[in-house]
Amino acid sequence: MANAKELSGAGLRGQIAGKTALSTVGKTGSGLTYRGYDVKDLAAHCEFEEVAHLILKGELPNQAELAAYKQRLKAMRNLPQALKEVLERIPASAHPMDVMRTGCSMLGNIETEQSFAQQHDATDRLLAIFPGLINYWYNFSHNGKRIEVETAADSIAEQFLWTLHGEKPTQLHTDVMNASLILYAEHEFNASTFTARVCASTLSDMHSCITGAIGSLRGPLHGGANEAAMELIEKMDNPDDAEAKLLGMLERKEKIMGFGHAIYAESDPRNAVIKEWSEKLAKANGDTSLYDISVRCESVMWREKKLFCNADFFHASAYNYMGIPTKLFTPIFVCSRLTGWAAHVMEQRADNRIIRPSAEYTGVEPRSVKPIAQR
Amino acid sequence: MANAKELSGAGLRGQIAGKTALSTVGKTGSGLTYRGYDVKDLAAHCEFEEVAHLILKGELPNQAELAAYKQRLKAMRNLPQALKEVLERIPASAHPMDVMRTGCSMLGNIETEQSFAQQHDATDRLLAIFPGLINYWYNFSHNGKRIEVETAADSIAEQFLWTLHGEKPTQLHTDVMNASLILYAEHEFNASTFTARVCASTLSDMHSCITGAIGSLRGPLHGGANEAAMELIEKMDNPDDAEAKLLGMLERKEKIMGFGHAIYAESDPRNAVIKEWSEKLAKANGDTSLYDISVRCESVMWREKKLFCNADFFHASAYNYMGIPTKLFTPIFVCSRLTGWAAHVMEQRADNRIIRPSAEYTGVEPRSVKPIAQR
Ligand SMILES: CC(C)(COP(=O)(O)OP(=O)(O)OC[C@H]1O[C@@H](n2cnc3c(N)ncnc32)[C@H](O)[C@@H]1OP(=O)(O)O)[C@@H](O)C(=O)NCCC(=O)NCCS
Ligand SMILES: CC(C)(COP(=O)(O)OP(=O)(O)OC[C@H]1O[C@@H](n2cnc3c(N)ncnc32)[C@H](O)[C@@H]1OP(=O)(O)O)[C@@H](O)C(=O)NCCC(=O)NCCS
Repeated sequence: MANAKELSGAGLRGQIAGKTALSTVGKTGSGLTYRGYDVKDLAAHCEFEEVAHLILKGELPNQAELAAYKQRLKAMRNLPQALKEVLERIPASAHPMDVMRTGCSMLGNIETEQSFAQQHDATDRLLAIFPGLINYWYNFSHNGKRIEVETAADSIAEQFLWTLHGEKPTQLHTDVMNASLILYAEHEFNASTFTARVCASTLSDMHSCITGAIGSLRGPLHGGANEAAMELIEKMDNPDDAEAKLLGMLERKEKIMGFGHAIYAESDPRNAVIKEWSEKLAKANGDTSLYDISVRCESVMWREKKLFCNADFFHASAYNYMGIPTKLFTPIFVCSRLTGWAAHVMEQRADNRIIRPSAEYTGVEPRSVKPIAQR
Repeated sequence: MANAKELSGAGLRGQIAGKTALSTVGKTGSGLTYRGYDVKDLAAHCEFEEVAHLILKGELPNQAELAAYKQRLKAMRNLPQALKEVLERIPASAHPMDVMRTGCSMLGNIETEQSFAQQHDATDRLLAIFPGLINYWYNFSHNGKRIEVETAADSIAEQFLWTLHGEKPTQLHTDVMNASLILYAEHEFNASTFTARVCASTLSDMHSCITGAIGSLRGPLHGGANEAAMELIEKMDNPDDAEAKLLGMLERKEKIMGFGHAIYAESDPRNAVIKEWSEKLAKANGDTSLYDISVRCESVMWREKKLFCNADFFHASAYNYMGIPTKLFTPIFVCSRLTGWAAHVMEQRADNRIIRPSAEYTGVEPRSVKPIAQR
């Protein structure tokens, strides 16, 4: 299994910041469990809505519960007119994570969570709306097209690909999306989730918590890593070139995005799953070069630095094989991690104390204000 | 001085989450220092831009530096057309903190911080734009008026009142605003600042960090307390009625907003300053009843619970005396605390490790996925 590292030092590493019943990282099974279930087991046997139900409502749904939940989410996909008009004012040059952040925040103005009794409604609405929201903006700003977001798509996985490409995706692509959304759904007190919990601890509303989390996920040390990994591998011509380039980067002490982890010691359990899907996509695609390059990167990084692929690395090639533009990679992460974020917000609210740590002071000694003329 | 409490327990209370040279809380002087200066000293002798310069650039400015800094900020007040159009799509019923959050996020799309070399520009732009931004929305949504945000106001304090009311404020009101903005500018690792630092630790952009912080400040346990305090005292007819109502609330174990503090043990140094301004405003106003009610609340809470007014309590009456609508109270806090948030973001970036604490697991034991038909 994926053991946890010896944790200490800056960044609150290893310090207990609260309790959770949602997941374990680096503890049991293959190293990642959602409410007791191994993530590999979930990725092999479930679709994303089952896992969202598990994370948000506590248990995997039975057939009838799943059908009702999917139906409910399907009915909530429409984009309010004011939100569309805001998205249309965001230029094509914008970072799609900024668009997600702004769209989520805007929704909070027009469909404000008025009390915590509405927390499930607010969350389900965001789950339903996010894929269409980002692809509405993407298609409008890049192709001048106002797309229909109320598609016939059966699931969130399908809805993302459908609203992006304007047609029903293949079964293979839908399966990959389901697995991907499951892998990204929840990960304990990572930086974006912790952002959401700090915000929740002031008893702020759900849209504030999720908006804040999106801003944190945007960072290249966090969710932004899958985009950075893609930018890296697409510059590599073949496995040998990949090896040469990586050695150069390591020599120059550059960080290689998509490798390493704050908690896992020697592997990230999500990697095996997405790597397998990436290989299947490569074969279906007929051109395996991106996959082959990625495999070489993995072995070079392990050989040279004992650094392993995290969830993000093989996501880059997998998404690319499905024709997803690189800059939309991290927004997909948002569509998924929203489940974990919201569940953590609910958990924080249920047993809250405001999160307010202390700091070590390193500044100047007490001094007194001099009149401005004497400065 | 305002000593710190014995800190322990949930909410990371008393745990060191990083280093800062920006402020001390509950340590020296009257209990709050910004870069070594006592906040009371600053509030008595400076205007807000001097303190913003201190916090963001490290030292109080001399006369020439201050003039240049104010000139620079003054030149950055214009609202981009796309941002205006977004603000015009937010209904009057929205929470103004949601408007601030959305406005800040939207600006991030059109004036993205492309590299950390732009961090001071991005911050100054937000400092300059926030007062006009919120009052543009407020006047448009409530009065149907598109206001001019490029006023002749000399300072941020004046700019806020001017864009709200459409005319140059009195000297007394400008002085109160300056003091208020100084009191709220910085407060170590409070929840909103900590939100900004967690976000910054992923190396995300300035707008994401500030947007997240706004969402946290919105919470009623944090910045939202000044609005809640106003809603409380405006229901009180006179000091005796205030006493009766408070006793009833304490009996029912309700929280009284504007009292208590996560760090200070027996007083909040900011209270004495804003209380004095509230008294002056009451006298200038000719009707002292809100002030008298507030004073009685203070003595009842101390007598009954040893709870003291924090920065927020007398801000309620002070802002009310200046004709500021209650729901704009927390946005003023944003216009000020932005300085602290941005300085913390810069500090985090300068010596970063991703903030990623651990959690105590309280969930179910490992289990395996049952086929859906058997659930
Ligand atoms: C994930 C990450 C932020 C964890 O941070 P962390 O807990 O501070 O990492 P560690 O303490 O294990 O780092 C140990 C050493 O390995 C180095 N290292 C870690 N990840 C590295 C990477 N991807 N490439 C090169 N070196 C790396 C660190 O720089 C550090 O070196 P130092 O001791 O000389 O400073 C870090 O591994 C990283 O930046 N990875 C790339 C970004 C990424 O893929 N993020 C997605 C995470 S799911
Ligand atoms: C500021 C605040 C969040 C600090 O939280 P904290 O560090 O968890 O507070 P403490 O640990 O000192 O609380 C000690 C006890 O006093 C009570 N208490 C604290 N502030 C109180 C208040 N304003 N009214 C009533 N009771 C209060 C707490 O409920 C707690 O009671 P318990 O032990 O029975 O649970 C808290 O005082 C509060 O909620 N105040 C009102 C909101 C406010 O004004 N916020 C602005 C802060 S600048």
